[in-house]
Amino acid sequence: MIKVEIKTTQNRYPVYLQKGILELTGRMIKRYLSPCPVLLITDKNVSGHYAEICRQSLLREGFKPSTVVLEGGEKDKSLQSAFKLYGIALKEGLDRKSVVLALGGGVIGDLAGFVASTYMRGIPFVQVPTTLLAMVDSSVGGKVAVNHPRGKNLIGLFYQPSLVLADMDTLKTLPPREFLAGLAELIKYGIIVDKTLFQQFEHFAQISGKQQQREQGKESGFLQLDNSTLLKFITKAVLIKGKVVSMDEKENGLRRILNLGHTFGHALELATAYEYYLHGEAVAVGMMLAANLAAKLQMLGEKDAGRISALLFHLNPPAPPAGLTAKMVLNALISDKKKEGEELVFILPATIGKTVVCKSPPMEQVESVVKKYLNNHFL
Amino acid sequence: MIKVEIKTTQNRYPVYLQKGILELTGRMIKRYLSPCPVLLITDKNVSGHYAEICRQSLLREGFKPSTVVLEGGEKDKSLQSAFKLYGIALKEGLDRKSVVLALGGGVIGDLAGFVASTYMRGIPFVQVPTTLLAMVDSSVGGKVAVNHPRGKNLIGLFYQPSLVLADMDTLKTLPPREFLAGLAELIKYGIIVDKTLFQQFEHFAQISGKQQQREQGKESGFLQLDNSTLLKFITKAVLIKGKVVSMDEKENGLRRILNLGHTFGHALELATAYEYYLHGEAVAVGMMLAANLAAKLQMLGEKDAGRISALLFHLNPPAPPAGLTAKMVLNALISDKKKEGEELVFILPATIGKTVVCKSPPMEQVESVVKKYLNNHFL
Repeated sequence: MIKVEIKTTQNRYPVYLQKGILELTGRMIKRYLSPCPVLLITDKNVSGHYAEICRQSLLREGFKPSTVVLEGGEKDKSLQSAFKLYGIALKEGLDRKSVVLALGGGVIGDLAGFVASTYMRGIPFVQVPTTLLAMVDSSVGGKVAVNHPRGKNLIGLFYQPSLVLADMDTLKTLPPREFLAGLAELIKYGIIVDKTLFQQFEHFAQISGKQQQREQGKESGFLQLDNSTLLKFITKAVLIKGKVVSMDEKENGLRRILNLGHTFGHALELATAYEYYLHGEAVAVGMMLAANLAAKLQMLGEKDAGRISALLFHLNPPAPPAGLTAKMVLNALISDKKKEGEELVFILPATIGKTVVCKSPPMEQVESVVKKYLNNHFL
Repeated sequence: MIKVEIKTTQNRYPVYLQKGILELTGRMIKRYLSPCPVLLITDKNVSGHYAEICRQSLLREGFKPSTVVLEGGEKDKSLQSAFKLYGIALKEGLDRKSVVLALGGGVIGDLAGFVASTYMRGIPFVQVPTTLLAMVDSSVGGKVAVNHPRGKNLIGLFYQPSLVLADMDTLKTLPPREFLAGLAELIKYGIIVDKTLFQQFEHFAQISGKQQQREQGKESGFLQLDNSTLLKFITKAVLIKGKVVSMDEKENGLRRILNLGHTFGHALELATAYEYYLHGEAVAVGMMLAANLAAKLQMLGEKDAGRISALLFHLNPPAPPAGLTAKMVLNALISDKKKEGEELVFILPATIGKTVVCKSPPMEQVESVVKKYLNNHFL
């Protein structure tokens, strides 16, 4: 069993990575928390596969689980859902020492975490991520949130879980498209701080830095990733994220490097009303755009930019949707900028394994990179 | 100008106490935060007197205030109000560095603090309490919350303000009943940790430990408290609260002493649907009941119990409402207990200036004390 310890100012908590750990949910939680009522929050996609395993394990150890199954999807992440969950928690008798458990992907984790952080001034929270994206990103680091009609994640806070249990077996039922989207965030860690991890991905993709010819319809080689390699990659990602989070828990500086590809990515998601891209897909395209912009601004060598694009290309990132224009993407970029403060800030790769913060780059360059993607010259 | 520094794990912040400081709102905030959009949240009772002074002061220093005037009253403390405020904040362009300012009593402070703590993962928050209760209690310590239909303050967290500005002048417009209710929380600090403060109150009330005859309809002598004495008392209360909070920010132990009178008080409020007592009044009665229970359990001497009751009696605490039965109060006590965990816990005075934690006292004793109050034998 792999255990990664995350240290923050709020607490210190373990992330356990192990095939089949879901069966041990109750036993693992009992190491840290006494038997108590548990609000097990999950969604329709996940519950059929895993909720019962989780619930039985909790029961065996004396916990009292109440399962809530949500629809699944971004619309669950609302203040209304939170309100509904508070009501259920109260009805089920959860008190200050009870537990909220999130069984699912990022949406479930973010919403359940928001509820845990605000229920009776914060109660223990356990993350059981069942998607690759949630394992390497949202389950670690304490960002919890719900959406506001005016934008995603606008209502939220930093609240660390008590423990995280990642069962690799749950990835078996993950649709290939979601798996590849999750890999985008994983590859991100290689680009921002870990050249070796990046090279391991290249090695696996057997591209070794040489750009492959696009073969339409070809299945991504990454779907063949064996379990032990994947476990190694995920562990590395969790270690990196944990280190970054412990150094900058509340995103005042360093933590922003985790946003590589996210400025472009969010703009793409916003411009397509969150209906076209999976988050990881938007980040994959965003990282390609970031590498391209960095090369244009001579902040990154052409060769490295090519390697980044080539590797991400293996994730089969989606071509731009019909009707999406550069103006729409730029408007979305600017609207995002307003949320963050006055400036438009990009995290850009400086080399593989290192980033640079780029404030207010020339908009013509930004536009030209976006247009290149929209004209299908990347993919 | 009096400045009390509060230290917590989250931050360290000053409480300024000064007549007329409202005029300096902008200047004081500028010492700590750069000019930015400010969401100034207040209510109908307060806004006519003070919102414009506060707004003009902010404008003079380059802040961009947007004023939101709520109805006033406990029903403002809802998730719906918070949702409305998020929307206004977004429309007004508040970003991560903007400020939420609470101008009002505890309801406004709790709600505004909840919004500040959850807007874009937490933005700076300034408390400008305009009631005595808010000055000595809710504005210091970081408890922020909204109510749930099933109970008060069930949705909330710990979130410390960036600074607190208490203008004694705002107490001039406070209705006498609210002033006296606020004094109850102030006297509480004397009972729990500061015998000298308690004696100063006794001295002022010219009772020096001797129980006065009740004179129906007599105006409380405490309404004559002069400004400098009051300032001294408030400063002491803030110092005590700050010390307690810095030692136990999240109420794992010590901080519970602040709950003297609150177990009975909450039960009285709950049993009367929050419509009969002001919070401070319920706490005043609650402290009388606690002193009486402590004496019954031989945890507190009869003489001290008498002194506590006599002093609180000067606040004109309300007689029990018609129709309130011991059973209703006891049921409310038990329902409150469920929220807190398994046991019914009372903070009781052990002597003047010291408390003791009393878990699950004999219910007959609790009932007998409640009955004594309901039969008007206290007042």
